[in-house]
Amino acid sequence: MKQNILDNLRNVQNTQKSLPERVAEQIRELIIEQHLEIGARIPGEFELAEQLNVGRSSVREAVKILVARNILEIRRGKGTYVAHNTGIVDDPFGLAYMEDEERLARELYDIRMRLEPWVASMAAESATEENVKELKYWEEELEKQIQADKNYLPADQKLHLAIANCTPNRVLSILIPAITYSIHLFGKMNRKKRTLETIETHRKIIAAIEDKDSEAAYRAMVAHLSINEETVPALANQVSK
Amino acid sequence: MKQNILDNLRNVQNTQKSLPERVAEQIRELIIEQHLEIGARIPGEFELAEQLNVGRSSVREAVKILVARNILEIRRGKGTYVAHNTGIVDDPFGLAYMEDEERLARELYDIRMRLEPWVASMAAESATEENVKELKYWEEELEKQIQADKNYLPADQKLHLAIANCTPNRVLSILIPAITYSIHLFGKMNRKKRTLETIETHRKIIAAIEDKDSEAAYRAMVAHLSINEETVPALANQVSK
Repeated sequence: MKQNILDNLRNVQNTQKSLPERVAEQIRELIIEQHLEIGARIPGEFELAEQLNVGRSSVREAVKILVARNILEIRRGKGTYVAHNTGIVDDPFGLAYMEDEERLARELYDIRMRLEPWVASMAAESATEENVKELKYWEEELEKQIQADKNYLPADQKLHLAIANCTPNRVLSILIPAITYSIHLFGKMNRKKRTLETIETHRKIIAAIEDKDSEAAYRAMVAHLSINEETVPALANQVSK
Repeated sequence: MKQNILDNLRNVQNTQKSLPERVAEQIRELIIEQHLEIGARIPGEFELAEQLNVGRSSVREAVKILVARNILEIRRGKGTYVAHNTGIVDDPFGLAYMEDEERLARELYDIRMRLEPWVASMAAESATEENVKELKYWEEELEKQIQADKNYLPADQKLHLAIANCTPNRVLSILIPAITYSIHLFGKMNRKKRTLETIETHRKIIAAIEDKDSEAAYRAMVAHLSINEETVPALANQVSK
């Protein structure tokens, strides 16, 4: 089996990118083609180096690249494994580096308004009891943070992820956290006034999901997102990117 | 100015993550807080090491982490710069590592059906002459590839990105390429039959955008995406993730 995996790696000496970058690409293909699952151990540095006909230092650099991209994780003294949430990095859209936060808030608002009411309605159709428990847990966490006048934004984001997790669509569980980044932007803009509305509208969403009422869940999510509508000005047409 | 940038970096010796990981985090914050733009040069290894009170090797490792995440790029013999498309990596959702391609095709199909008709209608409202030229360029490319019986999927993906680029929403230009990953999945499934329909429906979308007819663009995108409907079975409810 291990030999099969290694046979699959092509000789990587003669292409364009840097050598560690190419070795990283080969290891990445190995994971995909062999359907190596989360937590699977990959062959050691020595074996990979020999098979790919490169130095161990190139393999070491390649592994570092893949760790930085959350594709591999190193367990000290044990070996190198396929990482949890393989290949998913924090802020995958690089939103933190975008100029003009008000504009970004609007851009994210528009996309969330397209997706999240639909997600809430699907959640109402598919949520298990376990899912509803998780929704309530995060809603309580959120309310605790608000009452203690602490930063409630991470709990807010977790709640929206928990709603996505009620649906059978795995991609939404990756996409929704990426776009709820806007929660932090809204949070900066206009905090005090919105906390009561936040609590109330979240409760309505969760109640609708618990009741399996997808229409009500859809409407409650629209109402919830609309709290931020006034704070984000419309995008002008034909803005250069 | 440079001193100000460096003052902003806190001493990173006493926290939990690995030292290079923490140094990378500090450099990342520097880029964000100082609004360093694409192509901006960051301070050298020696300066950063001194200011952060860490060894140069830790700075070097930190820079490698940030290069792997497309936050920095090294220009040989020149220095280290903020990368283009800062922080955006290929396949940011790690879709290549997901099991069950048929299910993934459906998950992406459902999300695209929610977003892309809307994107096409906005494109019709906002597209400049320059934008329309780009759409036509990619459409021609795509048709050339199809006629030559070559792999037209990359051109297909570029065309959908070009439609997103017609809108003023920058996030769509990052999000759409991430989800049009499904083009490769559909391509695998059932290629020959769909190429004629692909050409025809793409032409209709572009014509509607050129005519600034947002309703027609919306409908043409629905028709276009629907080509793949029959090949992707509906998601069962309550599938565990």
